[in-house]
Amino acid sequence: MLSTAPKPAPLYAALADSLQHLIELGTLRAGHRVPSVRRMSLQRDVSIATVIQAYTQLENRGFLEARPQSGYYVRPRMPLETPEPRMAKPMAKASYVGVDDLTAEVMTLSMDPSYLPFGAACPDPTLFPTKKLARLLGAVGRDDPSLLARSAMNWAYEPLAREIARRYLQAGAPLDHDELVVTVGCAEAITLSLRAVAKPGDTIALESPAYFGFLDTIQSLNLKALEIPAEPRGGLSLEALREALQRNEVKALMVMPAFQNPLGCTMTDEKKEKLYAMLAEFDVPAIEDDIYSDLHFGERRPKPLKAWDADGRVLLCSSFGKSLAPSLRVGWCAPGRYLERVRRLKFTNTLGTPIVLQKTVSDFLRNGGYDHHLRSIRRAYQNQVHFFSNAILRLFPAGTRLSRPQGGFVLWVEFPSGVDTLKLFREALAHRINTAPGALFSVKKDRYRHCLRMNCGIPWSAAVESGLRTVGELAQKQIGGTEPPRRSVPRAVYA
Amino acid sequence: MLSTAPKPAPLYAALADSLQHLIELGTLRAGHRVPSVRRMSLQRDVSIATVIQAYTQLENRGFLEARPQSGYYVRPRMPLETPEPRMAKPMAKASYVGVDDLTAEVMTLSMDPSYLPFGAACPDPTLFPTKKLARLLGAVGRDDPSLLARSAMNWAYEPLAREIARRYLQAGAPLDHDELVVTVGCAEAITLSLRAVAKPGDTIALESPAYFGFLDTIQSLNLKALEIPAEPRGGLSLEALREALQRNEVKALMVMPAFQNPLGCTMTDEKKEKLYAMLAEFDVPAIEDDIYSDLHFGERRPKPLKAWDADGRVLLCSSFGKSLAPSLRVGWCAPGRYLERVRRLKFTNTLGTPIVLQKTVSDFLRNGGYDHHLRSIRRAYQNQVHFFSNAILRLFPAGTRLSRPQGGFVLWVEFPSGVDTLKLFREALAHRINTAPGALFSVKKDRYRHCLRMNCGIPWSAAVESGLRTVGELAQKQIGGTEPPRRSVPRAVYA
Repeated sequence: MLSTAPKPAPLYAALADSLQHLIELGTLRAGHRVPSVRRMSLQRDVSIATVIQAYTQLENRGFLEARPQSGYYVRPRMPLETPEPRMAKPMAKASYVGVDDLTAEVMTLSMDPSYLPFGAACPDPTLFPTKKLARLLGAVGRDDPSLLARSAMNWAYEPLAREIARRYLQAGAPLDHDELVVTVGCAEAITLSLRAVAKPGDTIALESPAYFGFLDTIQSLNLKALEIPAEPRGGLSLEALREALQRNEVKALMVMPAFQNPLGCTMTDEKKEKLYAMLAEFDVPAIEDDIYSDLHFGERRPKPLKAWDADGRVLLCSSFGKSLAPSLRVGWCAPGRYLERVRRLKFTNTLGTPIVLQKTVSDFLRNGGYDHHLRSIRRAYQNQVHFFSNAILRLFPAGTRLSRPQGGFVLWVEFPSGVDTLKLFREALAHRINTAPGALFSVKKDRYRHCLRMNCGIPWSAAVESGLRTVGELAQKQIGGTEPPRRSVPRAVYA
Repeated sequence: MLSTAPKPAPLYAALADSLQHLIELGTLRAGHRVPSVRRMSLQRDVSIATVIQAYTQLENRGFLEARPQSGYYVRPRMPLETPEPRMAKPMAKASYVGVDDLTAEVMTLSMDPSYLPFGAACPDPTLFPTKKLARLLGAVGRDDPSLLARSAMNWAYEPLAREIARRYLQAGAPLDHDELVVTVGCAEAITLSLRAVAKPGDTIALESPAYFGFLDTIQSLNLKALEIPAEPRGGLSLEALREALQRNEVKALMVMPAFQNPLGCTMTDEKKEKLYAMLAEFDVPAIEDDIYSDLHFGERRPKPLKAWDADGRVLLCSSFGKSLAPSLRVGWCAPGRYLERVRRLKFTNTLGTPIVLQKTVSDFLRNGGYDHHLRSIRRAYQNQVHFFSNAILRLFPAGTRLSRPQGGFVLWVEFPSGVDTLKLFREALAHRINTAPGALFSVKKDRYRHCLRMNCGIPWSAAVESGLRTVGELAQKQIGGTEPPRRSVPRAVYA
């Protein structure tokens, strides 16, 4: 055969293309099972091996998913034409965060298992490798009980710090292991970082809509918040940030460049580079929350802003709480030039992070197949986000806008403007459904009055679908209709 | 026998009295072994059983200690005539705590095992029931792996909170389990309490000499410290406190009524009652650090100030870090009327204390023989404090004053005024000895320039004795002499 002759597409690829076409046309519907391998082999008169190859390729392309002992299913897909939420207007000036019991209420309800957990961004326990972790935890005590009696003081259990540093090297952000302070979850990393860079009364800039935990922490430290609009797809508006930096004395920027909570937006590398240059220009440090980065739906983990940190102005904060196990409370901070300050604050705040838990996580990273686990949890989150998205578009009032995250597990829902999500929150509680109303996500309680963040960290189920239907109906009722439109799932194009 | 006739003292009691007399006379010296049971039985012509009863009684009286496989030894005793440290003068007004790297240095050095650990108040790892804890930790994961994946948010693992509440009931301070917030060690409890009651710029009163961790935390929160002198034996001076409250707007009092760090002083119940009345009169809340209370040398655990808390103004803080295992980081706060504030701050600070560790401690309290362990660790601390005390009086310059704690494991050493403990700290470091110089214990760096806190949390050994000798010699050199006086151990009366 001459090497110049085009190689004919193999049979399985042709089969895959043909099936993909049917999926795109909507003939094969999201959530439905495709014919079994044997049956497809008979239908199309190809070998079983060819069908398996075709299904595997479609799985890789993101069109099918295999469910153990059940078969292949069409994956839910995000209709491209769905409108995304709109970007917010810039804030004129920084503001103290008002005392607000709503956050506490939503968080408290999220601890009550009798409520459907659409509120807090809490993944379902079944998604975590608990048995393996439990085994490692047991081994830690058995192999070296003296760890339990070690001095409480530590900045990091060194083997864990080395594992974390190694992973950042792979992500394109080389760190030295002793630049890291291991913290009690990402929450402590954020609190210590804020305390290291700012004094009471100072102004902190952050993306809007803002993660309510940030606002709560800013409030608890008597700081002022200055919200900078974020684009639903591309993240923080650099234009708005520049204006804010010109007009205000901003002490630090809090930013989630990857899969921002609640929008799910992600900055390009080019944008991060520009952002870093702007921070350097105005000599402002950044507190980067990297907690969702490992949960990318695409091929690659986004590079953290820290990768551009030439002069130590980025305080990188993260944890294993969303990817490995929430209740172990193992997070970290790479505070750059603020290392000494963060270390001292760590002493006064909690003295040290429990060594046995640090060692458990470290052992998992070294021997437990963290990457393998990540692949599976990423696929689970992606599927859940897609199932939720499709259901929301089907069950919520016409005109509802929806974010299109490329990682993480939350959705940002923008209802038609008549909907009041604070009222909706109360109404949904009566149905044992917890939600996170838009009021939580800004110092201006009315700014996101018609918005809602949806936790997709729980596996799809009839109860989840029924809960979403209830929320949709309650919203519809607020704006006059009695029933949501019985829309068919839009003709889907995979986004 | 008529019931009015006095019962003659049993033989063993007479033997015990006679031996006690010899110990008090100094004929039997501290640290020396008394004759074996068999030998004593021959010497005194009494039965073996009688000797064993006598030795047991002397053990109970605190004059002898049994060492496994070795015999009975005369316990080191505190000479009553040793002068105690003097009480400090009141401070005229509150002051911000100066930025001081010394605390960080002492704490950092305490993590380096190549230094003799006289600095931080860290017990020796061998004192803790690590194997039992390790077994429980392993069982926690094995029995219920889902605990690892539970939501990170919690205020307390309920069974643990119930155990803690039960123990406070026994201590005379009834608490409801859901008044408790479980924290990452006592450090977090203190930080959250301070943040709950005070805003930056506010004044916090505290005992002087002050635990340097308190000063560090006060500084990190931009609060002002107002030091109130404490009596070396009876604790906080109520007269000084009254004056301070009259002249200053004090936002809270931080207080360690039992075995104060560093003085070891303890308030009587009568004094605590008066203190509470004064706090109520001036409407000031108290942050009570109860961490050493379980480590009493006497019969009874001191009652916490919280026992008098009729209107919720006491924020009781403590942890298992000094009594059970430092690195588990399980502490708690019973914040009284500040419960909601502390709960919200807990959310922003660390979200929750690791459940698996809470359950491990809870299981130990329920089934692990915590009281049995406490008895043994209390005896160990008491012995160590006595050994250190005797050695200090022997090896430190003439005129050295020494605290006489009735619990805990730190001593407060007041050198003759020519000694500079900051200089001594540096000199001792050259000998790989870490100490806690007096400068750490006040916002006024010169106030305790001739004082030193000594950690007695480590078992007595030749290395410890040699380290103390070195410190004594260095101090002696500073005030001119070349050698410490070769004093004999003072004729002892058990204190």
